[in-house]
Amino acid sequence: MEKTYKVIAIVGALLFWVMSAQLVVAQSQAVKAAQNYYEDNGADILNHYKEYLRIPNVASDIPNIRRSAQYLVKEFEKRGAEMELLELPDRKDVPPVVYGEITVPNAERTLILYVHYDGQPVDTTNWTHHPWTPKLYSKSMEEGGEPIAFPHSNEQVDPDWRIYARSASDDKAPIPALLAALDALKTSDIGLTSNIKFFFDGEEEAGSPHIRQYLERYKSKFDDGDLWVFLDGPKHQSGRPQVVFGVRGVTGMEITVYGTRRPLHSGHYGGWAPVAGQMMVELLSSMKKETGEVLIDGYYESTAPITEADRKAFATLPDYDDQIRKDLGITWSEFGGQSLIERYMYPTLTIKGIKSGNVGKKARNVIPKKATASLGMRLAKGNNPEAMQELVEAHIRKQGYHIVREEPDMERRLNHKKIAKVTRGKGYSATRTSVDNPMAKQIVSAVADASDEEVILYPTYGGTLPLYHFTEVLEQPLIIVPIANHDNNQHAPDENIRIGNIWYGIETYSSILTMD
Amino acid sequence: MEKTYKVIAIVGALLFWVMSAQLVVAQSQAVKAAQNYYEDNGADILNHYKEYLRIPNVASDIPNIRRSAQYLVKEFEKRGAEMELLELPDRKDVPPVVYGEITVPNAERTLILYVHYDGQPVDTTNWTHHPWTPKLYSKSMEEGGEPIAFPHSNEQVDPDWRIYARSASDDKAPIPALLAALDALKTSDIGLTSNIKFFFDGEEEAGSPHIRQYLERYKSKFDDGDLWVFLDGPKHQSGRPQVVFGVRGVTGMEITVYGTRRPLHSGHYGGWAPVAGQMMVELLSSMKKETGEVLIDGYYESTAPITEADRKAFATLPDYDDQIRKDLGITWSEFGGQSLIERYMYPTLTIKGIKSGNVGKKARNVIPKKATASLGMRLAKGNNPEAMQELVEAHIRKQGYHIVREEPDMERRLNHKKIAKVTRGKGYSATRTSVDNPMAKQIVSAVADASDEEVILYPTYGGTLPLYHFTEVLEQPLIIVPIANHDNNQHAPDENIRIGNIWYGIETYSSILTMD
Repeated sequence: MEKTYKVIAIVGALLFWVMSAQLVVAQSQAVKAAQNYYEDNGADILNHYKEYLRIPNVASDIPNIRRSAQYLVKEFEKRGAEMELLELPDRKDVPPVVYGEITVPNAERTLILYVHYDGQPVDTTNWTHHPWTPKLYSKSMEEGGEPIAFPHSNEQVDPDWRIYARSASDDKAPIPALLAALDALKTSDIGLTSNIKFFFDGEEEAGSPHIRQYLERYKSKFDDGDLWVFLDGPKHQSGRPQVVFGVRGVTGMEITVYGTRRPLHSGHYGGWAPVAGQMMVELLSSMKKETGEVLIDGYYESTAPITEADRKAFATLPDYDDQIRKDLGITWSEFGGQSLIERYMYPTLTIKGIKSGNVGKKARNVIPKKATASLGMRLAKGNNPEAMQELVEAHIRKQGYHIVREEPDMERRLNHKKIAKVTRGKGYSATRTSVDNPMAKQIVSAVADASDEEVILYPTYGGTLPLYHFTEVLEQPLIIVPIANHDNNQHAPDENIRIGNIWYGIETYSSILTMD
Repeated sequence: MEKTYKVIAIVGALLFWVMSAQLVVAQSQAVKAAQNYYEDNGADILNHYKEYLRIPNVASDIPNIRRSAQYLVKEFEKRGAEMELLELPDRKDVPPVVYGEITVPNAERTLILYVHYDGQPVDTTNWTHHPWTPKLYSKSMEEGGEPIAFPHSNEQVDPDWRIYARSASDDKAPIPALLAALDALKTSDIGLTSNIKFFFDGEEEAGSPHIRQYLERYKSKFDDGDLWVFLDGPKHQSGRPQVVFGVRGVTGMEITVYGTRRPLHSGHYGGWAPVAGQMMVELLSSMKKETGEVLIDGYYESTAPITEADRKAFATLPDYDDQIRKDLGITWSEFGGQSLIERYMYPTLTIKGIKSGNVGKKARNVIPKKATASLGMRLAKGNNPEAMQELVEAHIRKQGYHIVREEPDMERRLNHKKIAKVTRGKGYSATRTSVDNPMAKQIVSAVADASDEEVILYPTYGGTLPLYHFTEVLEQPLIIVPIANHDNNQHAPDENIRIGNIWYGIETYSSILTMD
């Protein structure tokens, strides 16, 4: 795919050359400008970043999260952006969205760049250093890296160095890279080619509880956006550049089936009393085969079909499946070994928990009174969470169950043979931009320009982010461009960023900011 | 059945009348003698019993359990029995078996009467009174009974009174009843008709860990026994007399199936990685239908068939099944509503526990790495525990599993698609005397003579006792004759005995001790 995109880029570049030679030169020069910039100013970039990393950024820590927001306002204003804190009325207890604009004369496109400036809460006990005291290491701790001093101005910087601090990767890392990209382009006198808006989210790691309110309240600020570019997440473990077109949706359900209203002595009643665990295993095995296929009527029907372009995107992914299976100690995977990326395109049904009675030392000669299963459902594009839950419930009813929402009382019990309590979890839809989307293709081309390696195109991540708020409120496509090293310990102790990945970010963002 | 047995008894009595009028008179008089005795001496019986109940009798409390044993030696010696403490060599830390003999000239039969003189451990916090401080109540606490003083000698005794104390029912109650029966027969000058041996077990509630050693070491003392009569357990809840011909066996297995070697993020791997819970539900639902039928090849084959006599015995049981279902809040039971007693005659397979991942608030978006199920198996006559476990394992193998005994290492994982760790539990065989056994029928007849109500004949209890040690070491039949009230709170706080049930014991034992 890299070649295809490079060819497109080159063809595009030639066309533009005719029309606007300056632009093409700018884009190809932008990456070079970025390189020159971090080579000349690497130590300063790190030292500035260190200061930013010192500001605690847990969403619930309002004074500090607001200091973080002010830092962003100040730094981006320095680079000529018009910055503003978006607030909810009378909610100073909520982290603001940091909003910014860089308007480019004659730009025909508006990119909205998303970064979340809050980080995961920390339990300091498992950290080697305090998470808000950034430490520089010669390489990763796992590889035997040693702590080193931050460099003096003009000192040489090794791209394999790591900075250890909370949010060093997730998701502060795009900030120094963006700031440096703007500085680099300015230094080399290369103009931006798109209007840029910034959306810096202060609550992502807290589940973005107010994101919908913010988007709805400030919708007019984003209405002219053409594409959201999410700057978040790690690159592929191969180190190759990566662009992601979407995320899966998610929902879940909890099902409890009932035997007798109290646990029974297995001697006095065993072989006669209904066994809740047996009812549950029969119900769950009627829903899915262990080999993967979901047997619920219509479960795959609403799913967007896989296109030829999707399959071409799959082909950009290194085929690690055999290696992953080996690492995980398995010789098989669901669906006869279909690729992981292909399976991301279908809805799943996963027993993430099942419980009835006790096992191990706590096991007793008792027939449990109920059995509960927690089902996880990852959703593909096209799957509506409630509609999928409805299909599961229809299946449960088809197995002879009466569905209730509360523990059944005796009247219910004596009026229905089999009773299942079903609790529906909240749901997110999948969000997925077509890999054929023209503007998304431009981003891919810009990312390709910033690297010698083929860009990996993920039609969708397996995981879930609440991106559907963005696409639902604003009906704009989105794309994710990650820069962090894959081994960054995000969400965990000793989170870190590899310096080379910041450099990659400066190059990539410079390329995007100047793309045709 | 009562009538049948009474008819047999009467016919038997007439035949014996011709041959030995004295015996028949003795048996019919024995119950009357018992009644006269407790009517004249009720208060003394209670007061003596109170002193016995004061002696703590937890098997692990060696000084007190040995005091209990000495009490039995002294009291039965007073009644002419030759008593002896059976000990294991150099094991003064083990409760002795209290052994006794009453030899009856010309008796053609030897009955071995079993009682266990130890009781359940106590957690005093939930008792209304201290468990070793017996308290008399006007009726049961649940029925609003009030504490009353123990009666003075010759004071009238109400059969609805209850004594509250640990082991008041389980299983000290047969002791005052046996002592009073011997006293009653002596007072009325009625001779015993069988040689009697006593086997008083001091470790039953501790699981009888040395019973096998005792039986093997002292086998010669019991070799001439014709029938073991177990004096233990509660009567039927209807209050009708009850004789039990056996108990079910029991064993169990724990099965763990493995997915990946670590839990996986359900976003990154869901829809692709094997799901241990799904494998488990498929495995378990291949073993049994929720309607009851075990699908494992040969699972029912070794089971002793149900005889005509068994079915006649079933018919003596009150048909409580509908009531039980209603009480338990169910409208159905396994095997299309076959009777509980009939199902006791077949082996069971019960999911007593299943666990994979978490449910409820602890549920996470994780694919668990394994799933574990604890299976309980109650065994019917003919089922060998190991052979039944073997059938289950053969079934597991048939589903494509490689069976291991330890957590699989990576080599095993990568050499076998599906792996199940199976841990076999200990097993007891069922023990069951035929309801046609001639001597057992004589016991039933004797029990019938002591009551106006039809005797309930249980071919087997649903529960399990390690009775197979007795039948295996000594190859003698056994029968269980319970006397306690069904609501005696055995094994629980506020254990109690209804005085009328001691009186019933005196009548029943007097009848058995003088049976034809």
